[in-house]
Amino acid sequence: MKKLLLVAALVLPSMAAHADEGMYTFNNAPAKAIGEKYGFSPDKAWLDHVQLSSVRLARGCSGSFVSKDGLVLTNHHCMRGCVEQLSTAQENLMAKGFTAKDPAAERKCPDVEVNQLVEITSVTDRITKATDGKTGKDFADALRGVQAAIQKECSTGADIRCDVVSLYQGGQYDLYKYRRYQDARLVFAPELGVAKFGGDPDNFNFPRYGLDMALLRVYGADGKPIKVDHHLSWAKASAAENDLVFTSGNPGGTDRQLTLAQLSFRRDYVLPRLVAQFSERRGILVAFSRRGPEQQRVAEEKLLRIENTLKVYKGRLDALAGALYAQKQTAEADFRAKVDADPKLKSVAGDAWDGIAKAVQAERALHDRRYMLDLGNGFDSDLFTLARQLVRAADERAKPNEQRLKEYTDAAFPQIEQRLVSSFPIAKDLEVETLGWSLATMRAWLSPDDATVKEALGKDDTFDLAKRLVTGTKLNDVQVRKTLLAGGKAAIEASKDPMILFAKQVDAASRAVRATYEADVDAPEKKFGAALAQARFALEGSAVPPDATFSPRLSYGKVAGWTEPSGKQVPYFTLTSAVFERATGNVPFRLPQSWLDAKPALDGTVHMDFVTTNDIVGGNSGSPIINQKGELVGLAFDGNAHSIGGSYGYDGALNRCIGVDVMAMKQALAKVYKADALVRELTGNDTRAEAR
Amino acid sequence: MKKLLLVAALVLPSMAAHADEGMYTFNNAPAKAIGEKYGFSPDKAWLDHVQLSSVRLARGCSGSFVSKDGLVLTNHHCMRGCVEQLSTAQENLMAKGFTAKDPAAERKCPDVEVNQLVEITSVTDRITKATDGKTGKDFADALRGVQAAIQKECSTGADIRCDVVSLYQGGQYDLYKYRRYQDARLVFAPELGVAKFGGDPDNFNFPRYGLDMALLRVYGADGKPIKVDHHLSWAKASAAENDLVFTSGNPGGTDRQLTLAQLSFRRDYVLPRLVAQFSERRGILVAFSRRGPEQQRVAEEKLLRIENTLKVYKGRLDALAGALYAQKQTAEADFRAKVDADPKLKSVAGDAWDGIAKAVQAERALHDRRYMLDLGNGFDSDLFTLARQLVRAADERAKPNEQRLKEYTDAAFPQIEQRLVSSFPIAKDLEVETLGWSLATMRAWLSPDDATVKEALGKDDTFDLAKRLVTGTKLNDVQVRKTLLAGGKAAIEASKDPMILFAKQVDAASRAVRATYEADVDAPEKKFGAALAQARFALEGSAVPPDATFSPRLSYGKVAGWTEPSGKQVPYFTLTSAVFERATGNVPFRLPQSWLDAKPALDGTVHMDFVTTNDIVGGNSGSPIINQKGELVGLAFDGNAHSIGGSYGYDGALNRCIGVDVMAMKQALAKVYKADALVRELTGNDTRAEAR
Repeated sequence: MKKLLLVAALVLPSMAAHADEGMYTFNNAPAKAIGEKYGFSPDKAWLDHVQLSSVRLARGCSGSFVSKDGLVLTNHHCMRGCVEQLSTAQENLMAKGFTAKDPAAERKCPDVEVNQLVEITSVTDRITKATDGKTGKDFADALRGVQAAIQKECSTGADIRCDVVSLYQGGQYDLYKYRRYQDARLVFAPELGVAKFGGDPDNFNFPRYGLDMALLRVYGADGKPIKVDHHLSWAKASAAENDLVFTSGNPGGTDRQLTLAQLSFRRDYVLPRLVAQFSERRGILVAFSRRGPEQQRVAEEKLLRIENTLKVYKGRLDALAGALYAQKQTAEADFRAKVDADPKLKSVAGDAWDGIAKAVQAERALHDRRYMLDLGNGFDSDLFTLARQLVRAADERAKPNEQRLKEYTDAAFPQIEQRLVSSFPIAKDLEVETLGWSLATMRAWLSPDDATVKEALGKDDTFDLAKRLVTGTKLNDVQVRKTLLAGGKAAIEASKDPMILFAKQVDAASRAVRATYEADVDAPEKKFGAALAQARFALEGSAVPPDATFSPRLSYGKVAGWTEPSGKQVPYFTLTSAVFERATGNVPFRLPQSWLDAKPALDGTVHMDFVTTNDIVGGNSGSPIINQKGELVGLAFDGNAHSIGGSYGYDGALNRCIGVDVMAMKQALAKVYKADALVRELTGNDTRAEAR
Repeated sequence: MKKLLLVAALVLPSMAAHADEGMYTFNNAPAKAIGEKYGFSPDKAWLDHVQLSSVRLARGCSGSFVSKDGLVLTNHHCMRGCVEQLSTAQENLMAKGFTAKDPAAERKCPDVEVNQLVEITSVTDRITKATDGKTGKDFADALRGVQAAIQKECSTGADIRCDVVSLYQGGQYDLYKYRRYQDARLVFAPELGVAKFGGDPDNFNFPRYGLDMALLRVYGADGKPIKVDHHLSWAKASAAENDLVFTSGNPGGTDRQLTLAQLSFRRDYVLPRLVAQFSERRGILVAFSRRGPEQQRVAEEKLLRIENTLKVYKGRLDALAGALYAQKQTAEADFRAKVDADPKLKSVAGDAWDGIAKAVQAERALHDRRYMLDLGNGFDSDLFTLARQLVRAADERAKPNEQRLKEYTDAAFPQIEQRLVSSFPIAKDLEVETLGWSLATMRAWLSPDDATVKEALGKDDTFDLAKRLVTGTKLNDVQVRKTLLAGGKAAIEASKDPMILFAKQVDAASRAVRATYEADVDAPEKKFGAALAQARFALEGSAVPPDATFSPRLSYGKVAGWTEPSGKQVPYFTLTSAVFERATGNVPFRLPQSWLDAKPALDGTVHMDFVTTNDIVGGNSGSPIINQKGELVGLAFDGNAHSIGGSYGYDGALNRCIGVDVMAMKQALAKVYKADALVRELTGNDTRAEAR
């Protein structure tokens, strides 16, 4: 969920759906409303085809099958982690790009998991029954237990992933069954220079000129590319202005249905801290990168990720500090008045707002501790994360499935396991800097006098401690991790690895704050959230879709530019020729040599990027943009600046989804990268697939 | 004003003064109120003695004369700039401290200016007359002109400094006449390890254990120590709980009398940006410092300054996001109702709130541009600052005095000139990093498509550009600066120095945004601010002191601990023995060797630091804490965490001023630093002074 790039759109709680807002579940798509507005109603076959052609990248992105041989299209920025992991000081794939000459050259990504949604079932009744009448810790335990049981029953093999999804803040629970694929191989990634053209300054802006695309291929247990029954065909032309278009993807999370107590806590407390923390982290990485080209290389992916997240947090803070908050106040007052006026609703939800406000008070008291210890921001190090996962895996997997932390249940653990047993390089010099810095930050946030901090840091300088842990650990060696994982509790108990010892040392305090959070914050928020959802269903029906939950959603909209509040008109597309005009020769406006070489051969009038009114947020990165024929016309990779406030509400006049045009992708593959076999496979004239 | 460390205190607009709040001008001290509350009323002789014993350090701090031979006591953190400037890679005075063995060993600080207030005169009538009926640019020009004229008439020589001070948001103008001293020499500075014991984590916290003191001596034009008629004697014992105490210093600025429009702009827009910017800057410097000990040394002072400022901004944001804002809303509604109910007041100030809100709208539109270009945050480099000052000095000093930018008038220019003609080291490697980073930040804030940005940066990478400018410039050489300054416009026109050329290139755009700000924001805010002040005087009299303006103020209060909202009691003092208990041996809890060596000789029961209820803010750093006998009992150096919100309001139950105890200073000088001559001079048994 850390890679979420895109941003969202509206539906104030008490308003019926209008404009093009809404991220709809596939089992509740608003076919009729779309038809009324655009003259086309997607039918079940259309919806099934799109759903089955779409995939989720389990660590935070979306994508789509684009050939019957398991080829997946997503964003370059969704595959940057893999590109970085496959790079070395000698061969920097981020800088020079990658095109597999043939299937044998496709390179396995260490930790990409691809999910294809095959079934949705309601489990609300079963969960309600299991948690009924319970509060606090009892509620949290019961919820965790029943979810683990449901997921385990459903996950009949390693190739099936089942997630219980809490919709409407706990008002509804659905079981999402996916096909799970853990062998995904990099097929094509352009150079970062063109994928991320414009860099951080252009991020969340439009006009925009990036080729933020990548291709990977899904392999089965037999080591061969999978065959899929559904994939998207590529359109033969760009979408035109006002064309109806859909996105199918996995928006990571929105907060549109939160109460004022929850929103003001984010505005006044959480977001300012996140902005400060991520800004400082950015500074650390920028300065580290300045030490030399190799440091620049190893920090690059992390820096880009942090810059993106930082921009999201800043945008959210701006949004909540703006006019939107007043709308939320009006909407909540209206909703409360309606609930209070109806004795039945009042008995269900009358106390929900105060109950949630109390939970928020509890969250405020433990936020910093949870952020640093449990969420791990005090330990900014991949090696620490691996150590913690090994320590917890040993502890948790010794328990009955229903009693485990949820990411260690039988159904969920394969995602963590994949990373533990995969080989990828870790830059120890960078790890020392980020860990040393984050430990110092934790000390500052929690106080040098905090008992956990004192025990963790001792009398050490935080950077000295980080250096000792990072240079001393052997967890960068995948064989060491595999041995520790296989050895279970006994192996962890016996380990003298300094990072394992450190992770053990801080684990009790980290678990404690998590347990308190689950009992005192999450449980009442779900309980009262469910009550509010019942009231909302009673008043408005279920036309308004649930907040995003990083599960598959459909959104509809049209291709359209917009008018800035200043009066400036922003056209809906950019031209390939404009990329060259904007290039300065220096990062982040430096085009790769391949593009400079190909310039004479390129058609400058081909649309590069374009914008649509689709309601998307982070997690939608890599979503296909689909026309009503079900063809791929673009690839969503960002939202405009206005869209960042989409976490809380959607403004159809301003919020825009940004995509790469299908024709730009085709032209680049054909003329810049001369990936003829790929072009044939993508455009349906795939002789290679036949040969297999 | 960048060094402001301390934080402020209350008086909501429509409340009469109560508790110990208020930073009073010396010509309007609340002697009667103090007498009623504490049984002691300072008389004119007492007030004159304290005023004349106090000094302002013109770049952002306070201090006091503590011997008849011009010895000045202030904070170590107020002298860190000088300590750093006097240090080299071979001799790091920040780390090892400095004690002048005899007068000849006292070392001149390159850019310290000491001001002693000798006279206050009202110039309200003259300024009102000059600006009457004017608005926008005309108002700004007239105000600048009349202020320059008044100051020039008053400044009869280089040793006299005259500042027109705008009080009550433009409601009153007073002329402050100071004796100006530009030859101040470092006499004593402890090691940073004890001066800043606890570092950033302990900053703005209490219990606290720092020896944040330094001594300098003021020299006259004859190159000899000045003789002063007034200085503070050191008390023979620590102040006791509940003792009445005063601080005399120069609080830098408060925003207690701003309107909601101004406050919400700070909360929602300005402060979040400042927090982000300073956090990132901190990260840049932390990571730069990690490159090696010399990089750590050259970045140290800047980093400490940034960390302090960042903590202030974060605290202000927290304060405005808290309950205080609701109090402000109530107070403004009450004030507006009273004005609207009185026809005369309504005619004076009825439109002031809307007028100010309009000015805030104008400010929002130009804030980022002003922040980056005019305030110079896009050019984070001492060399750039010097270049801009030389460029502007040439332009401005060719104009009539009344038409110049205010810092280049004859009365004001000596402060800039002192720095231009002083020799101090500049770390070019650090300059490249901060300038390159800040240029990139400016591009991100203002857009890569902004005309000024495009012209300034060209197609360069910002770090490459910074490197070219910083390595190419000769402005680090004081002789080069002196020649350019003496050569005036012709010399600047002829200069090929790359930093001079760059400063010239961005100057028109920087001046333009400043002119717009002065006409569209500052002028209406002063005009309507004055109207509100008139209404306030009519309703409440002038018992409520004006917002702080970095001019001398007196505050009163008592020695007292406090009770945290959590119920935790915080005692009013810390013990010398506790410093050793808290020491870990690692920064920021590493005591210098001198203290470890002296430990057996020290009396652990001597109070180290203590807290009082005095209302102080940043700029008060270095203020003497004085008992009713007029003796020095402590040295203010910080406020507690609650006090950071003091910019907007004072809570007597929680806000605290933190000082070093006089007995701790005496013990340190005598037993740790064995500065016997200094101890004799300070304790009035000064044989050395006689010998001169």
